Amino acid sequence: MLVNRRTVRIEWGDCDPAGIVFYPRYFAMFDASTSCLFEAAGWKKPDLLREFEIVGYPMVDTRAKFILPSGFGDDIVIETRIAAFRNSSFDVEHRAFKPAAGGEELAIEASETRVWAGRHPEYPQRLKSRGIPEIVRRRLSGGEGAAHGV
Amino acid sequence: MLVNRRTVRIEWGDCDPAGIVFYPRYFAMFDASTSCLFEAAGWKKPDLLREFEIVGYPMVDTRAKFILPSGFGDDIVIETRIAAFRNSSFDVEHRAFKPAAGGEELAIEASETRVWAGRHPEYPQRLKSRGIPEIVRRRLSGGEGAAHGV
Amino acid sequence: MLVNRRTVRIEWGDCDPAGIVFYPRYFAMFDASTSCLFEAAGWKKPDLLREFEIVGYPMVDTRAKFILPSGFGDDIVIETRIAAFRNSSFDVEHRAFKPAAGGEELAIEASETRVWAGRHPEYPQRLKSRGIPEIVRRRLSGGEGAAHGV
Amino acid sequence: MLVNRRTVRIEWGDCDPAGIVFYPRYFAMFDASTSCLFEAAGWKKPDLLREFEIVGYPMVDTRAKFILPSGFGDDIVIETRIAAFRNSSFDVEHRAFKPAAGGEELAIEASETRVWAGRHPEYPQRLKSRGIPEIVRRRLSGGEGAAHGV
Repeated sequence: MLVNRRTVRIEWGDCDPAGIVFYPRYFAMFDASTSCLFEAAGWKKPDLLREFEIVGYPMVDTRAKFILPSGFGDDIVIETRIAAFRNSSFDVEHRAFKPAAGGEELAIEASETRVWAGRHPEYPQRLKSRGIPEIVRRRLSGGEGAAHGV
Repeated sequence: MLVNRRTVRIEWGDCDPAGIVFYPRYFAMFDASTSCLFEAAGWKKPDLLREFEIVGYPMVDTRAKFILPSGFGDDIVIETRIAAFRNSSFDVEHRAFKPAAGGEELAIEASETRVWAGRHPEYPQRLKSRGIPEIVRRRLSGGEGAAHGV
Repeated sequence: MLVNRRTVRIEWGDCDPAGIVFYPRYFAMFDASTSCLFEAAGWKKPDLLREFEIVGYPMVDTRAKFILPSGFGDDIVIETRIAAFRNSSFDVEHRAFKPAAGGEELAIEASETRVWAGRHPEYPQRLKSRGIPEIVRRRLSGGEGAAHGV
Repeated sequence: MLVNRRTVRIEWGDCDPAGIVFYPRYFAMFDASTSCLFEAAGWKKPDLLREFEIVGYPMVDTRAKFILPSGFGDDIVIETRIAAFRNSSFDVEHRAFKPAAGGEELAIEASETRVWAGRHPEYPQRLKSRGIPEIVRRRLSGGEGAAHGV
């Protein structure tokens, strides 16, 4: 399975008056981490949308457990992978880690279900789910090309 | 049980290039809705923090199911209530509705678990959970005073 | 001149670790205030875009002077008006006020220049400025219809 | 003069329904860029606050001119430097560049005035400006230590 790890700096503006991350900001970081996973598989988001004629992969269900807080100046590592593919939807898992003595500690566990969505053919204001292309499944599963950043 | 309903206008800046709300923004709306519930019970957030000597009620676990998308210019109604109190943590439920023919449709269901937290007595940089005061439980449960916006 | 006044509640999530509004959030409030001014003139933003076939009125220049800080739980009043119209661009002024003994105090002064923009006819990925319709000028200047929320 | 350059990836969630950056997000990027400049001078923001017993350097005046738009997937380079120091306030300049044939093009010019602020000695809820320490001026001016990331 393709796994993407990236380091995210917690900024002053990500934090609330208690001095810790305002949790909606974590979801923005996770959304960007999902984009990074696709990029590791070979498609920057604008390319993904153009190549497969979709408008995005909107969220239908997400959950996050916040285990350790972080504050401005901290660097966290977000590790992202696909947990499951279905016909037109897929599950993503994120785990965020903080540096700790002798390694790193799990700070957040999050999961999300997204749908592969194009414009509705009859009502262009609406979105409509589409089948996820085989090449997308294969690369995000760590098969052909993905590991090499094709 | 005390229930707070409020209308939230979806702004241009809440929306992504697909024209629908960027979902982390919903969590910011829900966070404000929890504040509104406390305010309906008698405490604006700064007053709550001052009166009970806490630094906040940080999130430990949250989940949201997005059923219907919304776009800029839409008004959604967010309905918020406490689902459970434990010694030092509590669960909140939010339901967001969109206007529909003959009433309203459920657009989002969200739940959250938060902890009642003060400064750690020995390590002021850290937070420490505290018992939730009886008056807070009572008012948020819709008992004494709350319904009247005391 | 048409003037729109609206009250904005400062939320916990708008504030930084110093306990005051993280200033980029003010710009999001001002952006929404500009939408409100158009709505007071008769067009919710999605209607404005549809009726005049534009994609928005992107910002080209903005400035803000922050005179008094605000914190979570504060209510500020934002007053918005058009300062000038040119052929395809216009200037907006915002003034934010905080309640004070005997009235209100000026907390922020902001100005912005925006362009009336459609899709470029040849390169749909690009924006292209357009002439601002006469009806828009008239209503935002406080002429026909505007004061009555047509 | 110490100059910090950093690359910022424009994310899907930074963009609005027109597909370009929602401009308040640029101010969040600039705020982080100012932190990066201090870090290049030797102080991560939490260290800066601790060492000099300040609560931050809140914004008093900022302006940005948006010359070229950017969209999700774009990488911009933000170049940040101090433009002036006064007793208890300082000016910062940011310039954002986009890659272009044969080099890069100026996309945004921004300036900001910030105040060096501690807690008010008598009213801890308020902020009070303080004199900027000589070591801060020296390092941010590119003198002692700064260029080496001390």
